[in-house]
Amino acid sequence: MRCEVVAVGTELLLGQIVDTNSAWIGEQLALAGIDCHHQTRVGDNLGRVVDTLRRALDRADVVICCGGLGPTQDDLTRDAIADLLGVPLLHDETIAQRIRRMFAERGRPMPDNNLRQAEVPLGCHTIAQQPGTAPGLVCPTPDGKVIYAVPGVPYEMQQMLLGTVLPELVERSGRRSVILSRTLRTWGQSESGLAEMLAERIVELDEIGNPTLAFLASGIEGIKVRITAKSDDDAGARAVLDAEEANLRALLGPIVFGVDDTTMEAAVLALCAEAGLTLGTAESLTGGMIASRLCAVPGASATFRGSVVAYATDVKQQVLGVPEGPVISEAAAAAMAQGLQRLLGVDVALATTGVAGPTEQEGQPVGTVCLAVAVGDDLRTRTVRLPGDRERIRQFTTITVLDLLRQQLLERHSAR
Amino acid sequence: MRCEVVAVGTELLLGQIVDTNSAWIGEQLALAGIDCHHQTRVGDNLGRVVDTLRRALDRADVVICCGGLGPTQDDLTRDAIADLLGVPLLHDETIAQRIRRMFAERGRPMPDNNLRQAEVPLGCHTIAQQPGTAPGLVCPTPDGKVIYAVPGVPYEMQQMLLGTVLPELVERSGRRSVILSRTLRTWGQSESGLAEMLAERIVELDEIGNPTLAFLASGIEGIKVRITAKSDDDAGARAVLDAEEANLRALLGPIVFGVDDTTMEAAVLALCAEAGLTLGTAESLTGGMIASRLCAVPGASATFRGSVVAYATDVKQQVLGVPEGPVISEAAAAAMAQGLQRLLGVDVALATTGVAGPTEQEGQPVGTVCLAVAVGDDLRTRTVRLPGDRERIRQFTTITVLDLLRQQLLERHSAR
Repeated sequence: MRCEVVAVGTELLLGQIVDTNSAWIGEQLALAGIDCHHQTRVGDNLGRVVDTLRRALDRADVVICCGGLGPTQDDLTRDAIADLLGVPLLHDETIAQRIRRMFAERGRPMPDNNLRQAEVPLGCHTIAQQPGTAPGLVCPTPDGKVIYAVPGVPYEMQQMLLGTVLPELVERSGRRSVILSRTLRTWGQSESGLAEMLAERIVELDEIGNPTLAFLASGIEGIKVRITAKSDDDAGARAVLDAEEANLRALLGPIVFGVDDTTMEAAVLALCAEAGLTLGTAESLTGGMIASRLCAVPGASATFRGSVVAYATDVKQQVLGVPEGPVISEAAAAAMAQGLQRLLGVDVALATTGVAGPTEQEGQPVGTVCLAVAVGDDLRTRTVRLPGDRERIRQFTTITVLDLLRQQLLERHSAR
Repeated sequence: MRCEVVAVGTELLLGQIVDTNSAWIGEQLALAGIDCHHQTRVGDNLGRVVDTLRRALDRADVVICCGGLGPTQDDLTRDAIADLLGVPLLHDETIAQRIRRMFAERGRPMPDNNLRQAEVPLGCHTIAQQPGTAPGLVCPTPDGKVIYAVPGVPYEMQQMLLGTVLPELVERSGRRSVILSRTLRTWGQSESGLAEMLAERIVELDEIGNPTLAFLASGIEGIKVRITAKSDDDAGARAVLDAEEANLRALLGPIVFGVDDTTMEAAVLALCAEAGLTLGTAESLTGGMIASRLCAVPGASATFRGSVVAYATDVKQQVLGVPEGPVISEAAAAAMAQGLQRLLGVDVALATTGVAGPTEQEGQPVGTVCLAVAVGDDLRTRTVRLPGDRERIRQFTTITVLDLLRQQLLERHSAR
């Protein structure tokens, strides 16, 4: 069974709001094992909504139409479906009374235009869930297909999808199969480098067809490798994911830092906590970004003690004890890390100094970054050249220095 | 002239990433006065990409195709365009050399699959801007239409749109009317509060029809009031914007902190610089977020000297001299600000301490935040209760304390 998603609303085309609904619906359909090959956005224009729905029905068995069910004149989904099916819109007094009651309960007068929402194309019926004033519609077509019309308000749409639309689709598809995904997060290889490391496995999987792999570069979140598995049931899909995760981990080794929502910060905090180490950062070009990312992890306070953002050169010298000389240097980064260990009494210190741009500094080009990682007495430094603008350089610096610490902690762990 | 947007990528259909590119492109097209009636998303399937592009070309004069230009086997946009136009893909050695050079400059070996990106359909040429390894393509069709293919990486796509695609489209459209927008950024009123302050003006503008206003709550970026003006030419549209900005500023007063891309951080840094004051932050729950936002502003180093993230209680005490006692208190925030002024030798210090959650602390509920602003000897404190989860509480804390400083500097300025 194939399903298409049509999102209605001129504000989507104008970019005034981002169409997160289609993404959410797409994810739910994928998890339910229902194919969705196209998603379309169309403005509040009757002719174009009708054309878009017709085109979607040509290609698919089911169309989910999202938005355009509100009370105003530019809410045209009801009219478009009536047009498409060649049926009249009928007033439904039960719906009208429910809408009147909702306004009364909130102690507000009901503007008359809300009664537009009580109109239903002949032969269609409403979706049981009605969290807002706009009812959702189930609209069968003469050739056995169906249009589901749901509101554009995310909360209302989601209630109706989960309560009615998805269960009906699963029933209709007669599917017994389940699709699950898992994402491995990596750092240390480019997207194409990952593809090369996994080249043989990719060829194998192309033949087998299940699971499938996809790559996604995600900036400070790392480069993701997503495994998607199909099976007859949850347990089967999970077994496929487990087996493939093991395969990929064997091929990729320690560049995998986390799974699904596990950030680099969370991975590093967990390793520090496991080793009983406290952590702090001494930041120049990152300006507190590393600290802020660490603090975003609930429970960070068990491990993370604090930071010094030493943006001005004399703050580096006076607060962290960096000696005179170039500050875009591994020596300065090392002194920052050691100064922080002393000042905050932390076991582990990360330090960053470099040129985020827009202009060069100390004769060093934009993107030159010196890093230091001190785990107790084990002090290591590195200089890297990072691409991108100011913000990207700061973000790549953050994930790069956190990853250096991660590698150092893993080494330490395996040496014990 | 009509333009359509086609976003390519199975990950978009599966909801693994939200298609923000189409929204951004839609906004740019609207500002350029170019009609965009449909946006479509399609997966990484050659036949379906070709069909979707063909269908878009049937309806529109120009198609912007976003994504599918990377190095891997599932990047099919080049192949789809070649198929559609019935032309072969040719290897372009100039592009290949540029890609090789980009890898060499970063000191990394180039995986061979990157050479796929040097393939260009016969009769097409590349877009001048090339921020990443994937070149954008300009592909004329036999009937005088054109497909622009740009990468799915937002930063790269935006460079190419602004640098090449939009200027060419404006030229091609030969338009005589111009639509321009300007956004006033505010802090200190809710969205409905703003609507009340502007109620009379909104009624007037509904009658006049030009300019129009729209509100958008944008978290740490403040609440935006967007003015959109139409005119025959740039100068006319700009005059309408200028007049309306003056109207709104008179009604809203000092809650307007910036225009368009001016962040609260940039506004505060500018006020400090104007007054010849240096700045630093002492952060607990924000964990470096304020410092990091300040450092994101190019030229921040003229004013911003540094920060102490005092996450652990004893770091607050030992490094900043906070006395024993509750740390979720205005007294602690005040001591943090004064301690920072001493330690970093800054004129102005901001301090934050509070409960970001997920659990309460010192008997204070999640969202309780104490703030201090010290401008020289003028020390002020405040306690606020902020809504939302851990991340939103930290973000609202950041913009709230920066705005307190802004108000204090404005007062100081007008008292002189």
